[in-house]
Amino acid sequence: MLSLRQYFPILDWGRNYDRSTLSNDLIAAVIVTIMLIPQSLAYALLAGLPPEAGIYASIAPIILYAIFGTSRALAVGPVAVVSLLTASAVGQVAEQGTAGYAVAALTLAFLSGAFLLLMGVFRLGFLANFLSHPVIAGFITASGILIATSQLKHILGVTAHGHTLPEILSSIFAHLDEVNWVTLVIGMTATAFLFWARKYLKPTLRKLGTPPQLADILTKAGPVAAVVATTVAVWLFGLAERGVKIVGEVPQSLPPLTLPGFSPDLLSALLVPAILISIIGFVESVSVAQTLAAKRRQRIDPDQELIGLGAANLGAAFTGGYPVTGGFARSVVNFDAGAETPAAGAFTAIGLAIAAVALTPLVYYLPNATLAATIIVAVLSLVDLSILRKTWGYSRADFLAVAATVLLTLGMGVEIGVASGVAVSILLHLYKTSRPHVAEVGLVPETQHFRNIHRHKVETDPTLVMLRVDESLYFANARFLEDFIQRRVTNGSDIKNVILVFSAVNEVDYSALESLEAINERLIDMGIGLHLSEVKGPVMDRLERSHLIAKLNGQVFLSQYDAWRNLSALLRVDKAAE
Amino acid sequence: MLSLRQYFPILDWGRNYDRSTLSNDLIAAVIVTIMLIPQSLAYALLAGLPPEAGIYASIAPIILYAIFGTSRALAVGPVAVVSLLTASAVGQVAEQGTAGYAVAALTLAFLSGAFLLLMGVFRLGFLANFLSHPVIAGFITASGILIATSQLKHILGVTAHGHTLPEILSSIFAHLDEVNWVTLVIGMTATAFLFWARKYLKPTLRKLGTPPQLADILTKAGPVAAVVATTVAVWLFGLAERGVKIVGEVPQSLPPLTLPGFSPDLLSALLVPAILISIIGFVESVSVAQTLAAKRRQRIDPDQELIGLGAANLGAAFTGGYPVTGGFARSVVNFDAGAETPAAGAFTAIGLAIAAVALTPLVYYLPNATLAATIIVAVLSLVDLSILRKTWGYSRADFLAVAATVLLTLGMGVEIGVASGVAVSILLHLYKTSRPHVAEVGLVPETQHFRNIHRHKVETDPTLVMLRVDESLYFANARFLEDFIQRRVTNGSDIKNVILVFSAVNEVDYSALESLEAINERLIDMGIGLHLSEVKGPVMDRLERSHLIAKLNGQVFLSQYDAWRNLSALLRVDKAAE
Repeated sequence: MLSLRQYFPILDWGRNYDRSTLSNDLIAAVIVTIMLIPQSLAYALLAGLPPEAGIYASIAPIILYAIFGTSRALAVGPVAVVSLLTASAVGQVAEQGTAGYAVAALTLAFLSGAFLLLMGVFRLGFLANFLSHPVIAGFITASGILIATSQLKHILGVTAHGHTLPEILSSIFAHLDEVNWVTLVIGMTATAFLFWARKYLKPTLRKLGTPPQLADILTKAGPVAAVVATTVAVWLFGLAERGVKIVGEVPQSLPPLTLPGFSPDLLSALLVPAILISIIGFVESVSVAQTLAAKRRQRIDPDQELIGLGAANLGAAFTGGYPVTGGFARSVVNFDAGAETPAAGAFTAIGLAIAAVALTPLVYYLPNATLAATIIVAVLSLVDLSILRKTWGYSRADFLAVAATVLLTLGMGVEIGVASGVAVSILLHLYKTSRPHVAEVGLVPETQHFRNIHRHKVETDPTLVMLRVDESLYFANARFLEDFIQRRVTNGSDIKNVILVFSAVNEVDYSALESLEAINERLIDMGIGLHLSEVKGPVMDRLERSHLIAKLNGQVFLSQYDAWRNLSALLRVDKAAE
Repeated sequence: MLSLRQYFPILDWGRNYDRSTLSNDLIAAVIVTIMLIPQSLAYALLAGLPPEAGIYASIAPIILYAIFGTSRALAVGPVAVVSLLTASAVGQVAEQGTAGYAVAALTLAFLSGAFLLLMGVFRLGFLANFLSHPVIAGFITASGILIATSQLKHILGVTAHGHTLPEILSSIFAHLDEVNWVTLVIGMTATAFLFWARKYLKPTLRKLGTPPQLADILTKAGPVAAVVATTVAVWLFGLAERGVKIVGEVPQSLPPLTLPGFSPDLLSALLVPAILISIIGFVESVSVAQTLAAKRRQRIDPDQELIGLGAANLGAAFTGGYPVTGGFARSVVNFDAGAETPAAGAFTAIGLAIAAVALTPLVYYLPNATLAATIIVAVLSLVDLSILRKTWGYSRADFLAVAATVLLTLGMGVEIGVASGVAVSILLHLYKTSRPHVAEVGLVPETQHFRNIHRHKVETDPTLVMLRVDESLYFANARFLEDFIQRRVTNGSDIKNVILVFSAVNEVDYSALESLEAINERLIDMGIGLHLSEVKGPVMDRLERSHLIAKLNGQVFLSQYDAWRNLSALLRVDKAAE
């Protein structure tokens, strides 16, 4: 029963579901539904798909996540960054507007769902850790800039293409002569209104005496107001005939049953982008879920989240959607609106299903420029270049990782950008640990403590080199230690013994073991003893399974003080006998 | 002056060069020269190049290394693994036997030389550390198997192609009907003789009363004997007319002046293989050099080695050669023969130059099968599958890295094999450190020490969670810590304070900083304090540059005992007041 509940968290919260929870969830669902309608249409536009795909992608996935997910407040559906990634990936295998394009988007959702599910079943959630925070921050910021720029064409009413900043900008410049001025006025007005509403609508409403909660809801409904106003304007003044591009006919139907493509070519072309989308979507979703869970002292299970998101994406693949994940904006709205359980998500899905059947004729005259305006205003809040300043002040390595991610994402596209960011941060980490801090230590007089000879006044013995290694030993720093010891012993001709103090060594991998064996053999050739001290239990267990301890040209001491007493005293006896 | 000597180690040993050193160097040179003639021809065959390329690649590179290299005994020239890598890389851009093939090999040497030189100038030798020992061992073993298999076609006298084990084997099987029986007899006899000589020639000669040193030299000259005997046999019995493939005409000349290709297509096609060859060659060379240097208590400078090997490869590129590195076999022979300075290498070069001018007509009738036999016998000594058993016993992660490298090298070719090996070992390292050991600690009664509550009888306080993190905090384990703390605090409802003991944390990167900030904010939401103790100096310096310390919902304590006294005592006062 426990294991069943682990895989179906719904069994957990479903038991205690009561009337008050129901009413809270219902209120939240209404608010989120209203917010999601224009957002879903807009993100579909960003992904290069017909508008209904955005709504379909918000229905089945929400319900599936409600069954399998562990977060109580997460709202799953299309989000900006994943929509951009979808456009970039699908654009490489199909022409926008064709049937193949929609099928490729379904296939991407299918692969992404399958990959997330597999990761969840094999409990591989840790893979997401390889995306460092600076890389994620740099990637989100650069994506925000890319998305906002890519929407300029809808504001200007021109056609433009491209997946990198230079491509998009030069494509827009090349088509500047085609600008549709009516579209531009609509787009600019909508953008200006949305920016204003975001910042000033709530204080203005409050001044006018609106109760705080209502003011809040009305502010969040800003995009809906822009949608209604511009749609009515286009309809009233017949602006569509003056070249304003509109959403047009949207089928009035529940999400259809669809099949992703299973041709090997398509699957292999989309596999890498699907993995990328899965991991980025997962990271975004888990951060949001964890933040919201903490506010109510709940917790989420990252591995079960993989299963929840995997199910959601599989749902999207078979119901006319495209890749989805837990979105920041919609989840916060859901949480603030008082959603208590995933049932709120299910009610949102019902609301959207009703909208898909009943309300789609109303968006016929909705101009694309308005949708572009809602995207621009939403994504510009993701752009945060302060991460460059923050990391510069904190650590140059992290700054490098951010800068590389931002520049390569803007200049070479989202996939190369994020892949390079990951590579750079891993290489920088390996570089840092490849030159560990090795301190030569001496005895603090009158104590049994040993400290760095360069920082403290300590007793030393010219025949004895005592080195404390402040890092686990593994392949990236194994050779460093070899070089370090070789340099140290060739610099002192009196040296008879070397002691490695292992108090900070948590691991010795096979490369480091072989390096220690090589050091041992070279020291034997030089007639110098090699000793270890303060080796941790698990490290010692492993070393004993190798030949190192048997072949060691010296001893293993429990404490460094023992080592000093033995090796230094022994030599004094020798000297005394001379 | 010091810096000039740093870049020209020749200035160092050249000053003390005297007559006894000269005679030792000369003797070593004669021995190495004799050994190198058949070896150079054979490796050129392995690389798919005309035989003279192997000799040319042994002349200029040796001299250049003598000027710039830091090892006293390293012998630079063509080696088996690099020859195989050359064949694999060049085979992708040109047809064997064409002029383009030779030019591509020169270009590969040029790129490799330039890359090594750049790495040396920017002191990037540490990059070689990312090849872990298990990956190198697995790669060398798999390469040995591939090389030996690829030479079977010369022993059988058939044509066959392929760069992976299945390709080579199936190609040989497909041509089995073309076997040339005379070639097979020569090849088998030579192989059997060489295996026998390697193992039994020295003891046999010693039994016959040969002085030990002479026996040693005669044994090393085994391949020369095989070469002479089979060449004479082919000439005497006119076996070339019976289909035995022979070396044929080799130009009688000093190394020619050649130019690598500089077309952008060629350069970009060969760039990645060149980097791979450089790094693998560098790792092989440095291991050999370091082992030999240690025997005489000398040391080598890895960054200067890059410059020496870079110069050697540039030399090869402009004198009709192909990529070279410091070889194990030839270096050990050179060292054993008593070479004292790099001048021995220069004398070897002179010997080979004489051979190139005067002796090449003598190898006209040398059968390729004999050269293949010398390669097979040489490389099979590289094959050491015991690394699989050794790593299995020591660490499963290292075993996985070896197994992946061996299987992928055999099955997918050398480049994918070594690249996957590197990727696997880096991922496994990140995986291991992504789940650091976190111990919940308590106070050992009557002391100021804290130990793991699961292993020792310690005092604890239900309102206080004390966690000791046994690993530096960075992006790969930042989220782990978040999850760990979240899980811990949602499990105990009395918890008022969390203390993180940082005694083993050597670094906190920006990702981990943000995780700590997130943990802090979540704990604030739960009304729980977050405290740090025993933070190391450099870590504290960095944390103080961030907002974490200012926003911390608690204090930073110098010692964990202070933290305990403050936080636990405080609560006792509260309780006393109740």
